[in-house]
Amino acid sequence: MATAMMSFAQDSLLVRIAEIEVHEQYLNEYLAAAHDVGSESVAKEGGVICIFPMQVKDEPTTIRIVEIYRDETAYKAHLQTEHFLKYKQGTLHMVKSLRLVDTNPLAPEAMEQLFKKL
Amino acid sequence: MATAMMSFAQDSLLVRIAEIEVHEQYLNEYLAAAHDVGSESVAKEGGVICIFPMQVKDEPTTIRIVEIYRDETAYKAHLQTEHFLKYKQGTLHMVKSLRLVDTNPLAPEAMEQLFKKL
Repeated sequence: MATAMMSFAQDSLLVRIAEIEVHEQYLNEYLAAAHDVGSESVAKEGGVICIFPMQVKDEPTTIRIVEIYRDETAYKAHLQTEHFLKYKQGTLHMVKSLRLVDTNPLAPEAMEQLFKKL
Repeated sequence: MATAMMSFAQDSLLVRIAEIEVHEQYLNEYLAAAHDVGSESVAKEGGVICIFPMQVKDEPTTIRIVEIYRDETAYKAHLQTEHFLKYKQGTLHMVKSLRLVDTNPLAPEAMEQLFKKL
């Protein structure tokens, strides 16, 4: 495998896919809230490396969010931020189900290379 | 929503999650192959923006790969590359199931911001 060159410790990265099912009547409202909390978290929190929400094309009420935090401490801090708490409390009734799937990234060093593309 | 500032056309992006189940006896071999084809594709193909494979912690034979291609043309070109064909043919017997889930990214402009973090 290639040598990792990222400036943060790969071993402590928290990489997760949130699998979310939204009640259809709240879909647009939920999408806006998910967009906003993602952008705001990445912009304001150094420890939030990536929040990348996607809507499944064939099942519009199915959402997948790839989340990458620098470490457990960054994640816990994220849960206490004003923007996250606003999102969480504001969307509780919109969410039919939520599953947090923790993962091990197989090629974390590929992240650095991809960042150079843009 | 924030104004997009990426240098490629967001509307034509192809953003997908590949959901893969691997036969346990081939797991390590498969993980190595998936790692290599991802790194090689991002390194060699300008149109492959991201290939980010993850192994689900609680179900090690379950793999998720987030794939971002510049557009349909870049994806079709990827399918014809030597490294992809080698991966595909070399891992066919290792893969129990494969589902390609096409998505719409909700905050593609967030990608640019996250790339600045590293």
